[in-house]
Amino acid sequence: MKILTEKLTVDTKGNCDIVNITDEVQSFISKRKISEGNVTVFVVGSTAAISTIEYEPGLKKDIPQILDKLIPSRQKYFHNDTWGDNNGHAHIRSTLFGSSQTIPFLNGELLLGTWQQIVLLDFDERPRVRKVIIQIIGE
Amino acid sequence: MKILTEKLTVDTKGNCDIVNITDEVQSFISKRKISEGNVTVFVVGSTAAISTIEYEPGLKKDIPQILDKLIPSRQKYFHNDTWGDNNGHAHIRSTLFGSSQTIPFLNGELLLGTWQQIVLLDFDERPRVRKVIIQIIGE
Amino acid sequence: MKILTEKLTVDTKGNCDIVNITDEVQSFISKRKISEGNVTVFVVGSTAAISTIEYEPGLKKDIPQILDKLIPSRQKYFHNDTWGDNNGHAHIRSTLFGSSQTIPFLNGELLLGTWQQIVLLDFDERPRVRKVIIQIIGE
Repeated sequence: MKILTEKLTVDTKGNCDIVNITDEVQSFISKRKISEGNVTVFVVGSTAAISTIEYEPGLKKDIPQILDKLIPSRQKYFHNDTWGDNNGHAHIRSTLFGSSQTIPFLNGELLLGTWQQIVLLDFDERPRVRKVIIQIIGE
Repeated sequence: MKILTEKLTVDTKGNCDIVNITDEVQSFISKRKISEGNVTVFVVGSTAAISTIEYEPGLKKDIPQILDKLIPSRQKYFHNDTWGDNNGHAHIRSTLFGSSQTIPFLNGELLLGTWQQIVLLDFDERPRVRKVIIQIIGE
Repeated sequence: MKILTEKLTVDTKGNCDIVNITDEVQSFISKRKISEGNVTVFVVGSTAAISTIEYEPGLKKDIPQILDKLIPSRQKYFHNDTWGDNNGHAHIRSTLFGSSQTIPFLNGELLLGTWQQIVLLDFDERPRVRKVIIQIIGE
């Protein structure tokens, strides 16, 4: 049994940008020649999230739209008063979606569905350079 | 330390069906005689989710009802235009709830509360046969 | 590779109280002198959740406020009819947020951002004493 940790850097546009990081995660598993185990994908920071999605252009428009109805970007938040900033909505969304997902793999392949990708969602109100931790446990 | 991976097949009715899979997960741990560790439960596909709940008939009605208010099934989604299908809401709900949960166990028993069960939520708009991955790490 | 499991007791005020448990989780890692691995933080019970947040007073007011709009505490829930209780909203929120998070660490330090803390959210309608499981896998 081995444990391996890598940091990945991801450029985002912010504003609910959804970035497909499946190839980077799969590539880390393939390079290390580990057959069976799982990978924990974790985003550092409190205005982004990790989840899975069918990565296609329609949902990349649907998710920002519905989130702007549920947790609007233009609304009074106490958080914005605390720091004089403008991303209270991004913090709330991040806490709701969660900062990590753990995905199993077998025979060196992530056990994702054909239309299921691992994504970073960046809710902040500006472009960001994100640090994502990819950690494998397996043998 | 060992790692063990099993695929479970679960029939659902779709339409926010909530299926209790706690016994199947506990049974997998018990059969393998592993005492201390955790189990990652992951659903393959992008219109379902894994979570925990007090599994009782009231909540099985409450959750579909509140989700139909927050992320309605009958509404225009760009996703539906992409494929000519009708399950945009199911994809958004899946990304929000997340496709995996990791639950610790000790002395061969899941450390769940008495009224806390592991469930598969199927948001798709039709019955599905779901593949769920159960993966144990422990000793 | 080792696996270590500890139970933590956390007093909450309920009603969407958000409690910072980062120091307790970090302390458990530090005491055990494990360098590289991850920690699964899991809350026992079906009316609470584990997530990450920038722990500051503004968000501690924003999150209860927005949740009371999305999943109101004062509303008819079938769950409340089942048991004659009053916390249907707390159960739904718990299932939505999820009961666990897995966070990687390296050189004995959680790989959290500077403004990113691990929190217990208690959605129940009264003060509770919560059991939280902290489980480390690493070496």
